[in-house]
Amino acid sequence: MSAAIPGTMKAMILYGKNDIRLVGDKPVPAPGPGEVLVRVKACGICGTDVKIITKGMPTMPPYGQFTQGHEWAGEVVALGPTVDEFKVGDRVAVEAHKGCGRCRNCISGLYTACLNYGDLGKGHRASGMTVDGGFAEYAVHHVNALFKIPDNVDFVQATWVTTLGCAMWAADTSGGYLAGDTALVVGPGPIGLAMVQALKGLSAGKIILAGTRKERLDIGGFVGATHLINIREDKDPLARVMEITGGAGCERTYDCAGANGSFELCLRSTMRGHPLTLVSFFKEPVPAAFDYAVLNGIQIMTVRGEGGINCKRALSLMSQGKADTSRILTHTFPLERFAEAYDTFVNRKGGAMKVVVLP
Amino acid sequence: MSAAIPGTMKAMILYGKNDIRLVGDKPVPAPGPGEVLVRVKACGICGTDVKIITKGMPTMPPYGQFTQGHEWAGEVVALGPTVDEFKVGDRVAVEAHKGCGRCRNCISGLYTACLNYGDLGKGHRASGMTVDGGFAEYAVHHVNALFKIPDNVDFVQATWVTTLGCAMWAADTSGGYLAGDTALVVGPGPIGLAMVQALKGLSAGKIILAGTRKERLDIGGFVGATHLINIREDKDPLARVMEITGGAGCERTYDCAGANGSFELCLRSTMRGHPLTLVSFFKEPVPAAFDYAVLNGIQIMTVRGEGGINCKRALSLMSQGKADTSRILTHTFPLERFAEAYDTFVNRKGGAMKVVVLP
Amino acid sequence: MSAAIPGTMKAMILYGKNDIRLVGDKPVPAPGPGEVLVRVKACGICGTDVKIITKGMPTMPPYGQFTQGHEWAGEVVALGPTVDEFKVGDRVAVEAHKGCGRCRNCISGLYTACLNYGDLGKGHRASGMTVDGGFAEYAVHHVNALFKIPDNVDFVQATWVTTLGCAMWAADTSGGYLAGDTALVVGPGPIGLAMVQALKGLSAGKIILAGTRKERLDIGGFVGATHLINIREDKDPLARVMEITGGAGCERTYDCAGANGSFELCLRSTMRGHPLTLVSFFKEPVPAAFDYAVLNGIQIMTVRGEGGINCKRALSLMSQGKADTSRILTHTFPLERFAEAYDTFVNRKGGAMKVVVLP
Amino acid sequence: MSAAIPGTMKAMILYGKNDIRLVGDKPVPAPGPGEVLVRVKACGICGTDVKIITKGMPTMPPYGQFTQGHEWAGEVVALGPTVDEFKVGDRVAVEAHKGCGRCRNCISGLYTACLNYGDLGKGHRASGMTVDGGFAEYAVHHVNALFKIPDNVDFVQATWVTTLGCAMWAADTSGGYLAGDTALVVGPGPIGLAMVQALKGLSAGKIILAGTRKERLDIGGFVGATHLINIREDKDPLARVMEITGGAGCERTYDCAGANGSFELCLRSTMRGHPLTLVSFFKEPVPAAFDYAVLNGIQIMTVRGEGGINCKRALSLMSQGKADTSRILTHTFPLERFAEAYDTFVNRKGGAMKVVVLP
Repeated sequence: MSAAIPGTMKAMILYGKNDIRLVGDKPVPAPGPGEVLVRVKACGICGTDVKIITKGMPTMPPYGQFTQGHEWAGEVVALGPTVDEFKVGDRVAVEAHKGCGRCRNCISGLYTACLNYGDLGKGHRASGMTVDGGFAEYAVHHVNALFKIPDNVDFVQATWVTTLGCAMWAADTSGGYLAGDTALVVGPGPIGLAMVQALKGLSAGKIILAGTRKERLDIGGFVGATHLINIREDKDPLARVMEITGGAGCERTYDCAGANGSFELCLRSTMRGHPLTLVSFFKEPVPAAFDYAVLNGIQIMTVRGEGGINCKRALSLMSQGKADTSRILTHTFPLERFAEAYDTFVNRKGGAMKVVVLP
Repeated sequence: MSAAIPGTMKAMILYGKNDIRLVGDKPVPAPGPGEVLVRVKACGICGTDVKIITKGMPTMPPYGQFTQGHEWAGEVVALGPTVDEFKVGDRVAVEAHKGCGRCRNCISGLYTACLNYGDLGKGHRASGMTVDGGFAEYAVHHVNALFKIPDNVDFVQATWVTTLGCAMWAADTSGGYLAGDTALVVGPGPIGLAMVQALKGLSAGKIILAGTRKERLDIGGFVGATHLINIREDKDPLARVMEITGGAGCERTYDCAGANGSFELCLRSTMRGHPLTLVSFFKEPVPAAFDYAVLNGIQIMTVRGEGGINCKRALSLMSQGKADTSRILTHTFPLERFAEAYDTFVNRKGGAMKVVVLP
Repeated sequence: MSAAIPGTMKAMILYGKNDIRLVGDKPVPAPGPGEVLVRVKACGICGTDVKIITKGMPTMPPYGQFTQGHEWAGEVVALGPTVDEFKVGDRVAVEAHKGCGRCRNCISGLYTACLNYGDLGKGHRASGMTVDGGFAEYAVHHVNALFKIPDNVDFVQATWVTTLGCAMWAADTSGGYLAGDTALVVGPGPIGLAMVQALKGLSAGKIILAGTRKERLDIGGFVGATHLINIREDKDPLARVMEITGGAGCERTYDCAGANGSFELCLRSTMRGHPLTLVSFFKEPVPAAFDYAVLNGIQIMTVRGEGGINCKRALSLMSQGKADTSRILTHTFPLERFAEAYDTFVNRKGGAMKVVVLP
Repeated sequence: MSAAIPGTMKAMILYGKNDIRLVGDKPVPAPGPGEVLVRVKACGICGTDVKIITKGMPTMPPYGQFTQGHEWAGEVVALGPTVDEFKVGDRVAVEAHKGCGRCRNCISGLYTACLNYGDLGKGHRASGMTVDGGFAEYAVHHVNALFKIPDNVDFVQATWVTTLGCAMWAADTSGGYLAGDTALVVGPGPIGLAMVQALKGLSAGKIILAGTRKERLDIGGFVGATHLINIREDKDPLARVMEITGGAGCERTYDCAGANGSFELCLRSTMRGHPLTLVSFFKEPVPAAFDYAVLNGIQIMTVRGEGGINCKRALSLMSQGKADTSRILTHTFPLERFAEAYDTFVNRKGGAMKVVVLP
C-alpha cells in the first residue's frame, strides 16, 4: 500500500441505537483479493441508514465497530491482489451489493437475490450494511460492485447511482424496453424521482407521477414527469390516470411508496396484461386484490436493491445529461458535521431531499 | 353446408339462474369467416360453468338463448369462408378464448388479456361464455382456437386440453424452462392436477403437491407428484417444504387454490429470486406480505385461461402419454342427462373430479 | 362514405418494369371491416420501391393496377365496419405490414413473420407491396397497422416511422434494454441512421457508426453517433472499434449494410456473449465465421420490417424530439413530379437521403 | 486433509503432441478456497481431448505437467476453505467451466462467455483444459461447477452430464419452452444424441434426427427421435423435413454437425420466425444465406459448453430415467489402459460412441 495512505482515519461509528459518533483513529482497511481501497469523497444518507441507526439490523457488524454508508464515491488509492480492472487514481462509484458468486442465484446473474446474503466467508458483501461502508475517509469494496465515474459526473452526483441504479433495475425487471409506453410512478421520494429519470431516459411516452407533497411533485416535473397527480388535492387519482390514458391504463406502473393505497392505485392503473413493479420496501402486509390481478393478467414484479449491473447504466445516463440531480441532492456537509446532515435529512429541513456527506 | 347437417339440434339453454334446460330445436349455427362448424362429441363441466349457472355473467348471451360449455371437442363438419387450416372430418379440440386480433395485447400475442374481451363485433370470442359453446350437438369456433387431436387421444380426453393448456400457460409464464427444478403446487383440484402433469412433462425434479383431500392428493401422486403434503394432517406444511428442499425453498410455486392460506404457503415456500404463479381465481383480496416478497425478490405472476397456444402443447403432451386422465375424467353422461352430470360434478358424487357430457 | 370523397383519384400505377405512370382516374378504394380510408398526405420512397419498379415482386398486384408506396401518412376520411379505434379527421401514420392474425406466428405476436404472407383472403396485408399503397390520393389500411400522429409531428416526418420503427424493432430484438451499452452500427444509409436514433433514444452509451460516405457519417453524428469510422480512410476499422471500447468490443452490433465486409466487422466487434443483429437485407450468401461466433457465444439476430408495434414507439420518439429528420428527409415533391422524385432518390441527387412524395 | 489421501497419484500427463503417458507420482492437488478434492471414479474422452492431444491448445498448462479430462465424476474426499455446500463422501459430477465471477458476463450469469477465460488469477477454471482435470486419481474443482449425483445415477453415467448439459443449454438458449414443438437435429454424434434426449425430456413433439451413419441414427431412435433421415440414402432431406412437418418447417433446429451442409439443412428447415441453434464447433467459415434468414426472421443462436447451470438439470433428467446412456457410453477402460481407450474412441472401434476411463 502506498506510503501516502495513513494507518488510521476519521470515520463514523455506530455505538448503539441512535448513538453514532465520529472517531479519528479507525484503522484504514486493507483491500483483499479482488478488492480496491478507495479514498471516499462523498457518501449519501439513505432511509435505510436511518433504520439502521434507530433500530439496528441483524446482519450488521457489531456496535462499536460498524461504519455505515452505502451510497459512496471516491478515488482508488490501492489495489488488492489480482485487480487490474482499476488503477490508482480512478474515480469510482459503488453498488452496495456484491453477491457471493457461488450460490445458484449469483451464478445465474441474480446477485441481489444472493442465497448467501451476509455470509462474508463465502464472499457476499453489502457495503455499509454487512461490512464497513462510506461514512469514513477510506473504504474497501470489490471490483464487481465498483464503476468508473465518467469525467463529466462529480463525486457528489455519483452518490446518486445507487438510487438511480435501483430505478433502472426496476425498469429492467418490468421489461426494460418501454419506449413510447405510458408509465405511472406513485411516490415522489428519491426512488420515485429516480424512477421518473429512468423512464425518461428510456423514452417512455407519458410519465405520470402521483404523490402527496407538491414540492416533490414539482421536482418530478423538473426531472421528466409529463403529468402530475396531487393525491391530496385530487379526490380520485385513478380517474385522473384513466383520463390521461384514455381509459386504457398504463403499460407500466411502479409503486415507490410501499403502502396499501399506493399498491391499490398502481394495480387499478395497470393496463390488462402488463406489469406492476414494487420498487419500495413495504412496512407490513397489505390487502391485495389478486382476484383483479388474475382476471386482468397483471404481473406483480419486485426489485430489491440495484441489480443487473444497472449502476453502470445509471452512470451512463448521468453522463448523458439525462438524470439531473440539481434539485435532488439538495444538501452537502463535511463528515465532521454528520449530526447536522442526519438531522437535515431525517427532518427534511430546508426542503432536504437527499443529503450527502463529504468525508 | 353439407346436406347431412340438420337445421336444428339438441342443446342446453340457460333460461335463468339455476334454470338450464335441454331443447331439441335450437338452430344449428353457421360458421363465419375463419370459423368452422363442429359436431360436438364431448364437453367438460368446469367450475366456471357452475358460477354462470348459479350467478350469471355480465358478458354472456341473453337468458333463453345462451348455450354454455367451453371445454369441448368434436369433428369438423363444415368450413366457413377462407378456412383451409382444417378439413371436414378433422377431429378438433378447442381453446375457449379467441382474441380480437386488433388490440395492442392481441397484436403482441397476449390474447388472453385481450382489451376487447366480449366485443363480438371486433372479433373476440369466449366459447361457452360470450358466445354459444359445447353443451349442444353443434358449435362453431374460430380456427385460431381449434387444434387437431392426435390419433391416440379420444374426444373425452381432448376436453382436458383447456385445463391442461391453462397449466401449461402457467408453466410458460413462470419461465417455461424448469427441468430439474423443484416446484410446489397448492390445491389438488383439476387445475392443480393439470399443473402437476405439466411440471412432470417439462421434467421438473421434485414436484410437491399440497392439499386437504387425501383422495385428490393420491391422484396427484398418480399423475406425477413426487411429494404429497396433506395440510389437514401436517401441522406445518411450510416446514415440510423446507425439509424436502433442504431449506432452500422451491424454484417455482403455483397457487391453484386461490385463498389466503395457499398464497401464504406459496410465498414462504418460494426460493429467493424466483416466481410464484397464481393459477387460480381468487374470490376476494387476501393480505399479501409484499414486504417479504420485495426483500426476497419474489415475482408474483398471474395467468388467466390458456394463453400462448398452450392447448396445442397440451394435446402433444397427452399424445405423448404424459398426461394420464384416467383418474381425473371420472364420469361421462349423455347430454340428455345433463342434470345428473351437473349434480355429480357440483356435489362430487362418487369421487367425481371432472364430469364430461356427450352431446 | 362521405360525399366529399370523390369516386376516382390520382395515383401512380406500375405498368411494367421501369414503367410507372400517373393516372387521374383510379377508383378510390372502400375500407373493409377493420379498415379505414385515408387521404394520403405524404409517402416516402424506399429502396424496396426501387426493387419493385425495376424487377417486380412475386406477391404484388398485377401490372396495370398496382399502386406502390408503403411509407405513408395522412388523414382519416372514412371508417370501415366495426372501426372505433379512429375517427374521421385523425392524422395517422402506417406500418406496412398487417399479419393474417390466424397463423401461429401472428397469434404469438410475430406478425412480421406471418406464415400467410401475401394471402389476402386470410387477412395479411403489406401496404404498397401486396396491396395498393400510398403513392395515391387515397389508400386504405387496417387499424392494426395505423397509428395516431402526435400533434407536434407533421405528415412528412411521419413517413419516417416505417424506417425508424424497423430500427426500433432491431433494438427490441437485440434485447431492448441497452442503456449505457456500447453499440456499433455499420452502414449509414436511412436504416443505419434510424438505428443511431433508436440507440440514442434508448440511451445507449457509446454509439459508433461506420461507413464509407463522409456526408452520411456526418448526418449520423448529427443524429446521435458519438464515434464515426470512415472505412475508406481508416485502414483497420476493427482496430478502431477495439480502441474505442478498450478491447472489450460492443454489447450490441447492427449490420445495416448487408454485405460480406459489414457482417465480418460486426461479428469481430461484438463482445463475447452478446448479439449481432442483421437489420438489412442481404443480396447473397456471405461467408460466415460461425466457428468464431460459437466460440464466443455470439447470437445472430435478424429482423424483417417493423414488428412489435414499434411504429407506435417510433412516433413517440419523434414526438419527444429524439429523432430529428431535418437532415434525413431531404427532398419533397408533389405526386405529379414522381419521376423527378424517383430520379433524385435513386441517383442521390443533391445529397438526397430520403425523398418524400406529396399526393 | 484426511490421512487416507496419499501425497501422489496416478495420472495421465501430456508431454507433447500425441505424447500422453501414465505417471504414478503426480502430487495430489490441494483444494483452494471454494474448492473440493475429488477421488475421480470415471472420466469420459471427448472430441476436444483429441484436439488437445493432437494439436495442443494455447491456454493449457505446460507440456510435462498437464492432465486432461473434463467429463468426470467421483467422490468428495476433502473440502477447501469456506466450503459447506458439499461434505466428504458426496458423489459429484462436474461442469467443465467455472467463470471468473467478476467480469460483466459472469456477473450477468453468462459464465460460459467469461471475459477472463483462462485467467487463473481472476478465478476462471476450465477443468482438464486450462487446469488439470479428471484423467487422474484425484482432481480439484470449484463448488460452482460441481453437482451432487442422484442415488440412481452411477459414476460412469454421470460423465454424460457435460454433454447432456450442453444440449440442455442449447435447448435453453433456443427458448427453453418447446413442449409439443417440432425439432430437427442434424448430426447424430454424442452431442446430437444428447440433444435428442434433451428435446424428449422437454416434451418436444416430433423430433427429427438427420445424419449419415445408420447405426448412430438407430441409437437416436432408441433415445427418443421420432423420425430419422439418413442423408446418404435420402437424396432430398429438406423435402423429407417438409413432408414430416406438412410444409411448415420446424419450430427449432439444432446444428450438431457444424458443417456447410448441416447449416444449410437447418436453415431451410426452420419455421419462419423461429431459431436455429448452432451446438457444434465449426472448423471453418461456411457460406450463410443471411438473405434467407433475414427475409424469414430466423435467429441464429450459438452455445458454447454447458452454461446456465444446465448440468444440474441434466443430472435430474438422468435421475428421472429420461436420458438412457446404455447405447451411448459404449466402452469403459481402467486408467492404465488409456492408450487402448483412446484408440477405441478415435477409431470408433467396436461401434464406440463414448469411451469412459476409470481412474
